[in-house]
Amino acid sequence: MITKNKKLRIIPLGGIREIGKNFTVFETEKDMIIVDCGIAFPDSDMPGVDSVIPDMTYVVQNKDRVRGLFLTHGHEDHIGAIPFLFKEINVPIYGTKFTLGLVEKKLEEEGMTAGVEMIEMHYGEMVIKGDFCVEFIRTNHSIVDAAALAIITPCGIVLHTGDFKVDYTPINGQPIDLMRMAELGEKGVLLLMSDSTNAEHKGFTMSERTVGRTFEDIFSRTKGRIIVATFSSNVSRVQQIINTAVKFNRKCVICGRSMVNVIDVAIEKGYIDDTDVLIDIEEIGNYPPEELVIITTGSQGEPMSALTRMAVATHRQIDIVPGDTVIISASPIPGNEKPIARMIDELCKRGANVIHKSLAEVHVSGHACEEELKLIQTIVKPKYFCPVHGEYRQLIRHKNIAVELGIPEENCFILENGRVLEFEGDTVRCDEMVQAGNVLVDGLGVGDVGSIVLRDRRHLAEDGLIAVVMTVDSRTGALLAGPDVISRGFVYMRESEDIIDQIRETTRDALTRSDSYGGRKDWAYKKTVIRDAIHEFVYEQTKRNPMILPLIMDVAAGPGSAETTGDDEE
Amino acid sequence: MITKNKKLRIIPLGGIREIGKNFTVFETEKDMIIVDCGIAFPDSDMPGVDSVIPDMTYVVQNKDRVRGLFLTHGHEDHIGAIPFLFKEINVPIYGTKFTLGLVEKKLEEEGMTAGVEMIEMHYGEMVIKGDFCVEFIRTNHSIVDAAALAIITPCGIVLHTGDFKVDYTPINGQPIDLMRMAELGEKGVLLLMSDSTNAEHKGFTMSERTVGRTFEDIFSRTKGRIIVATFSSNVSRVQQIINTAVKFNRKCVICGRSMVNVIDVAIEKGYIDDTDVLIDIEEIGNYPPEELVIITTGSQGEPMSALTRMAVATHRQIDIVPGDTVIISASPIPGNEKPIARMIDELCKRGANVIHKSLAEVHVSGHACEEELKLIQTIVKPKYFCPVHGEYRQLIRHKNIAVELGIPEENCFILENGRVLEFEGDTVRCDEMVQAGNVLVDGLGVGDVGSIVLRDRRHLAEDGLIAVVMTVDSRTGALLAGPDVISRGFVYMRESEDIIDQIRETTRDALTRSDSYGGRKDWAYKKTVIRDAIHEFVYEQTKRNPMILPLIMDVAAGPGSAETTGDDEE
Repeated sequence: MITKNKKLRIIPLGGIREIGKNFTVFETEKDMIIVDCGIAFPDSDMPGVDSVIPDMTYVVQNKDRVRGLFLTHGHEDHIGAIPFLFKEINVPIYGTKFTLGLVEKKLEEEGMTAGVEMIEMHYGEMVIKGDFCVEFIRTNHSIVDAAALAIITPCGIVLHTGDFKVDYTPINGQPIDLMRMAELGEKGVLLLMSDSTNAEHKGFTMSERTVGRTFEDIFSRTKGRIIVATFSSNVSRVQQIINTAVKFNRKCVICGRSMVNVIDVAIEKGYIDDTDVLIDIEEIGNYPPEELVIITTGSQGEPMSALTRMAVATHRQIDIVPGDTVIISASPIPGNEKPIARMIDELCKRGANVIHKSLAEVHVSGHACEEELKLIQTIVKPKYFCPVHGEYRQLIRHKNIAVELGIPEENCFILENGRVLEFEGDTVRCDEMVQAGNVLVDGLGVGDVGSIVLRDRRHLAEDGLIAVVMTVDSRTGALLAGPDVISRGFVYMRESEDIIDQIRETTRDALTRSDSYGGRKDWAYKKTVIRDAIHEFVYEQTKRNPMILPLIMDVAAGPGSAETTGDDEE
Repeated sequence: MITKNKKLRIIPLGGIREIGKNFTVFETEKDMIIVDCGIAFPDSDMPGVDSVIPDMTYVVQNKDRVRGLFLTHGHEDHIGAIPFLFKEINVPIYGTKFTLGLVEKKLEEEGMTAGVEMIEMHYGEMVIKGDFCVEFIRTNHSIVDAAALAIITPCGIVLHTGDFKVDYTPINGQPIDLMRMAELGEKGVLLLMSDSTNAEHKGFTMSERTVGRTFEDIFSRTKGRIIVATFSSNVSRVQQIINTAVKFNRKCVICGRSMVNVIDVAIEKGYIDDTDVLIDIEEIGNYPPEELVIITTGSQGEPMSALTRMAVATHRQIDIVPGDTVIISASPIPGNEKPIARMIDELCKRGANVIHKSLAEVHVSGHACEEELKLIQTIVKPKYFCPVHGEYRQLIRHKNIAVELGIPEENCFILENGRVLEFEGDTVRCDEMVQAGNVLVDGLGVGDVGSIVLRDRRHLAEDGLIAVVMTVDSRTGALLAGPDVISRGFVYMRESEDIIDQIRETTRDALTRSDSYGGRKDWAYKKTVIRDAIHEFVYEQTKRNPMILPLIMDVAAGPGSAETTGDDEE
């Protein structure tokens, strides 16, 4: 299978030096496959942005060569961008049953299922697509049906772990297939691409089963209603909640849109046992609190999630009452700490007893820690190593672990999105770049919010804006109306008449001054003079720097011909 | 000293159900004292706000009765609002030496030292102010010279712990004065007010000294330059860095404005030993990297801090180079996780080896955990208990700890800011409220940014704005110029001419339509019609909701008479 003098190029378009939007291209001269197609969640410096997807230009430009999309698992950072990709291309999608169930749901919501071919893969199965042969290998993760991919290429075997942990006692009884990985290691693995999320954490990630023990302990001493918030995609966690509910004679209600969606898929595909304890949310009134468990979304304190709505008493069916026990069975995703803390406070104020990760072992990670990473390195024994799925410091740490285990430093590659890792015969290079980057999604707009729009949003958020409007005679430049001053997000206008009056005066002075310097009809010049004058005055008075928009209307001219583009938008 | 039938009122104006802006009033009919006067840091939903201070109206209204301000320690959330308070009142300030040193520096910066009386207190010393007698008791915290206050009142002894931990081996050799607290407990303590920050954390907070051992370990195996970022106020931490530097023959540079300020005070007041290893930042070039330690601000990833500037190569004197070891000797303050992660990534990209809390024991908390809280409860044996300094869930947890130790639940009070806890003879009540709340500081403005301004800033941040401007004939209502469309933070105008044109058309249609419904000169009505039309069009097209500002100039009227207040500012 391995042919010399054939090229293999591996190009991450997302997921490197970041957590999120995993997207990796594998290509030979003839064929291309894609591994994962995810979104990232926007940073706090991207206000208003709904999600971030990879720049897929390189794939779209080469769409005739794309043979398939291979999915390691069903998390949003691995499948969330599929609708965006499939607006541009259409290729078969390969994945395990549960992963494809989630993809199908997603495409249905977008009305895009028609004509999309989805091929269900079983562990151990292989599919040949042009120059590539891909095998799905069982792993453990915080979602069921996760897979590593062994990609047999003309240059050798590439093992991509996907997101994984090593769980010897997973809830579904199926531990990661270390034997197959070791077997591949014996055959010789050219390159290992391995999950770096927890590379900075020593030791071993605890088994999912430990959380079940904590649930048993909490359920055994809890009298009232129990509400458990967790990630909707963590089917094993939900199964453990159901198992514990069965043991303590409680019924379960599934709550929150994404929880309902995912559990629907899980039930339909046969991933949930004991579904007879599930009752409809409308039936809640038929059971006393001590016979109920509510399984809900909202573990991240998302403002519109079911649990947050319960916390602030805007949930339609469920009110938090004293005696309720709320278990937050999740870790905060970095950046969500404050909203989660606020939500917990609100729940406590309504009398709930809230149990979260600082108080009990109600969550375990889905990613491998240092010792697990070493285990994989040791059995796979790759020639080259490329840490993936992590921020830069995590990739570096993972590389250092690999080097400690004996991989030569020069055989390790810390890539970046768009960087091409190219194998050809015995050589490996890493000097080419293709187009890559963040494409921001805001409402229906994909890519129309760029750095200037974001800069303006941040500026507006920081100090608001002042607009000054005036109408001048287009022939003489004489002021016909205004200047009027409107401000938003700067000061409360009704209580700040003084400063508004002074800004009006400042504008009038600047306008007069600009007449004597420049031409009476050089609007751009006038606007600059006005903007600078207001900026200086306002900063002096308030030490604030609002956005200043001088708008000059030019009255003898016809409609639409006056200045419409702001000259500070650059 | 204890007189029956006298009233004691305790009113927190900050610090309850929040971390920050600690401010508590103690009053009898005749006298009032204040304990601490701090700021809070703004939440992410307060864009542009610099800091938050307590609403001090109640104190200002009663300023003739205020006898003194008592400070437990020198952190910003306990002293930061003093300049704002002292613009309104002037009373003697009581505190330990280092605390007052920091207050003096702060007042100097504001040009406010003149006429402010500061009285240095030693541990064990008491001062009588009217109905109150206040004793300073030694505690341990992440700043030197922290104190608990025993406040002897007409109704009994109130013990306020301030922020504390129990450190048997502190760096300055002076553990918390448990004996004095036990002695007060024997006498009988009416009320304990105790720090709840770490009430959710089990066990014991480790001694500050453990961090020193980690430093020794890291220094002993580090060849290149070492950069340690920590909180500037943690003088013991800085002392340990200096001690380790001395041991390993390194010179120390103090870097970052607040670090320089605080360490200046610490040196001046005699809180730093071995100052001869300190060198000026300009002397850095005289020493090889292996003989240098840089002690810097920036442990929270603050954008303008010294370490962040080093990380992004904008620091004037220090560049990060491969071989540098950076120690982040701090925990993230909730909300700062992302900027810290970004900063660490930047440092790694420049080749630094970054050691942070996940990788080694380079930080310990300054606050007591559950077992320490139990220790204090046990020796103080208060009749009543009031958990302070914490968010609601922490206060509740702290209350539960107290109840487990035998305090009757009805003797525990979870207060809120403004709530009056009133003792009179044998009775205690908690039903009155005084004015309290957040006052936002933005630039020079104190309190002029309120909920409407913040709402507008959040709205502008989310989706930007669209302003449409037009000039009409004031007699006929006929359009003379415009409509012109300006947008900021919505779409990039130069690449979005289509939608801008369509918004212009929508405006023109709406204006025409409004003519036929309402009067031709009802500007407010016209603006509403235009705003609704644009809103609907834009949402339909983009699923975004920018702020829409219709501005109609009215041309025959004189300057300044046209609409200047936006009618959606309410």
